Amino acid sequence: MAQQTLEVLQSTDLKPKPDSSELAFGKYFTDHMFMMDYAADKGWQRPRIVPYQPLTMDPSAMVFHYGQTVFEGLKAYRMSDGDIRLFRPEENFKRMNHSSERLSIPPIDEDLMLDYLKELVKLEKEWIPTEPGTSLYIRPMIISTEESLNVAPSNTYTFMIILSPVGSFYKEGINPVGIFVEDEYTRAAPGGTGNAKTAGNYCAAYKAQERATANNKAQVLWLDAIEKKYIEEVGSMNVFFKIDGEIHTPVLNGSILEGITRKSVIELLEHLEMPVQERQISMDEVIAAHEAGTLQEVFGTGTAAVISPVGSLQYKDQDYVVNNGKMGETAKQLYETLIGIQTGRLKDPFGWTVMLEA
Amino acid sequence: MAQQTLEVLQSTDLKPKPDSSELAFGKYFTDHMFMMDYAADKGWQRPRIVPYQPLTMDPSAMVFHYGQTVFEGLKAYRMSDGDIRLFRPEENFKRMNHSSERLSIPPIDEDLMLDYLKELVKLEKEWIPTEPGTSLYIRPMIISTEESLNVAPSNTYTFMIILSPVGSFYKEGINPVGIFVEDEYTRAAPGGTGNAKTAGNYCAAYKAQERATANNKAQVLWLDAIEKKYIEEVGSMNVFFKIDGEIHTPVLNGSILEGITRKSVIELLEHLEMPVQERQISMDEVIAAHEAGTLQEVFGTGTAAVISPVGSLQYKDQDYVVNNGKMGETAKQLYETLIGIQTGRLKDPFGWTVMLEA
Ligand SMILES: Cc1ncc(COP(=O)(O)O)c(C=O)c1O
Ligand SMILES: Cc1ncc(COP(=O)(O)O)c(C=O)c1O
Repeated sequence: MAQQTLEVLQSTDLKPKPDSSELAFGKYFTDHMFMMDYAADKGWQRPRIVPYQPLTMDPSAMVFHYGQTVFEGLKAYRMSDGDIRLFRPEENFKRMNHSSERLSIPPIDEDLMLDYLKELVKLEKEWIPTEPGTSLYIRPMIISTEESLNVAPSNTYTFMIILSPVGSFYKEGINPVGIFVEDEYTRAAPGGTGNAKTAGNYCAAYKAQERATANNKAQVLWLDAIEKKYIEEVGSMNVFFKIDGEIHTPVLNGSILEGITRKSVIELLEHLEMPVQERQISMDEVIAAHEAGTLQEVFGTGTAAVISPVGSLQYKDQDYVVNNGKMGETAKQLYETLIGIQTGRLKDPFGWTVMLEA
Repeated sequence: MAQQTLEVLQSTDLKPKPDSSELAFGKYFTDHMFMMDYAADKGWQRPRIVPYQPLTMDPSAMVFHYGQTVFEGLKAYRMSDGDIRLFRPEENFKRMNHSSERLSIPPIDEDLMLDYLKELVKLEKEWIPTEPGTSLYIRPMIISTEESLNVAPSNTYTFMIILSPVGSFYKEGINPVGIFVEDEYTRAAPGGTGNAKTAGNYCAAYKAQERATANNKAQVLWLDAIEKKYIEEVGSMNVFFKIDGEIHTPVLNGSILEGITRKSVIELLEHLEMPVQERQISMDEVIAAHEAGTLQEVFGTGTAAVISPVGSLQYKDQDYVVNNGKMGETAKQLYETLIGIQTGRLKDPFGWTVMLEA
């Protein structure tokens, strides 16, 4: 896409901002959004920041029928001194293009998108909450809009970025969560869309989440589609195991989403001289480590929670308590370091944070 | 849902109807649509027929992000004498509820929906083309509409039925199609959403379709996700094989969509004393039959094409021609009989057609 002038149409009717205490995940949206359209004969065009507004969509718009869509999720933090930080945003646009490739959606210009995102976040800076643990959640998304029931890639798309102030994931402190190991429903198979961030992967997981909830567990641990034996992810997070002093995580195999927090944790631990073993990990092996007393920690990684310690695993009607249901020291160290870097309380030796001049 | 009065708001601005020769698949829509809303605290409510119109959707509407949606596809035929026929519509609403179950979408009242559909089709009867091979395509659909980025089933939905006059699938007579046997990309895995008619399954198939097209083949033949060995479906059709005088089709295994044409073909062949073997069929077996000269016919079944003969199969860079690239006698007989029953030219001994009084 050729550089095109970003049009900015400011809202004249600003909304009241919710109180920090009322914040939930993705419930409130800011005054403005970014939009851009794609047409097969014109490419991506008309980048614009406009008042947050409903879309007018024909019932035949392809997204409703054939689900061709991708999205991203990242956060902006604002410190009390007014500084705004984004965490590795270029990774999100890179992953978005990777997802789009799988879904036959045309790629975006990653650098340009980052520029537009920065403009949008600067415009909405008063919306970034500053209470500890709060942040501005950023949702870039592409939907297919062609008005046709033909089962084929759309010729038109809309790219949007919407922003939502979100509360602390850990309002009552970090409590390790219970995990239900799902061995019937499948999230993703080799050759499927598991490593793309696309809508269909998420609704497909609701039935398993229902089973987890019915078992009083917070999240689902997904096993591989083929043998229902190897660990893939936990809910919308990647997962790490500390076994006998070493950290292990499932290797990216094509059906696991390539988490940016996962990548950061691996780089951080490398830096701390605790290299992570990326490999195939079977559930049997985890249970054996538990029996042997060497399963020291389990934790999930993702943008929403950053680090989410796991306190128990339910597998085939057996419950396995991890680290006495307490957060482990590695999870704690990772959490503090990542949150510290993201919010600017700690130095960022990696160049992960992108500062926005206010 | 309690019986609620169907509200009918007639359009005052009727659109010109496209000429039969211009018809394509799902390109033109009629003057009216059916709509109904769901809210967790109220159930399905406000059934109404309204002018065909765009939807107003918040960018945060769940369908754009997590893809929770289901749909159906069936046809209405109108004979020159004005009679309108639907083909097994109750099966579509039954399958829709089955799909909804998998996607954690609340069920609809199947009988009521059929009543509403009849009203809608009667109102739009002038839109049903009458040229041989044409029909009115009916697309019932449910989309999730809650305005939240929370990864969980929506609390609100919209059910719609839109109608599209469609041209003949076989404008230039029935020409058998070439098929590309896909052995990398996966359509559906056990425990996934393959036997639900939901958006995410369709966009996930575009990459494989690209490969088929690049190989000059019209459609993809899908293999099972686990061993990439057993035959599942062809494009958006179920598939049948005539080997040594006997008809075989893959058994419904949870990842195959339960086609209504498939079911009708099985019932019809049963009636004709040619029972169908529903079983696991490997690609190797089909190739072996081809080599032995016993692979007599291959054909797909689905609402769009009814019966689609397969003229060749490309598998691992080898091309296997079926029946000299000609339509076989069983496919021909099935096509004529089904189309005959659907359009009313032949008697319907099965009670499959639903007649609408004009
Ligand atoms: C399925 C899935 N896995 C893992 C992750 C974690 O990725 P990230 O660390 O980039 O947020 C996410 C969330 O983005 C996800 O949706
Ligand atoms: C994936 C898939 N398989 C098979 C079919 C055939 O089903 P039916 O005969 O009900 O049209 C369809 C189309 O509806 C489909 O989408």
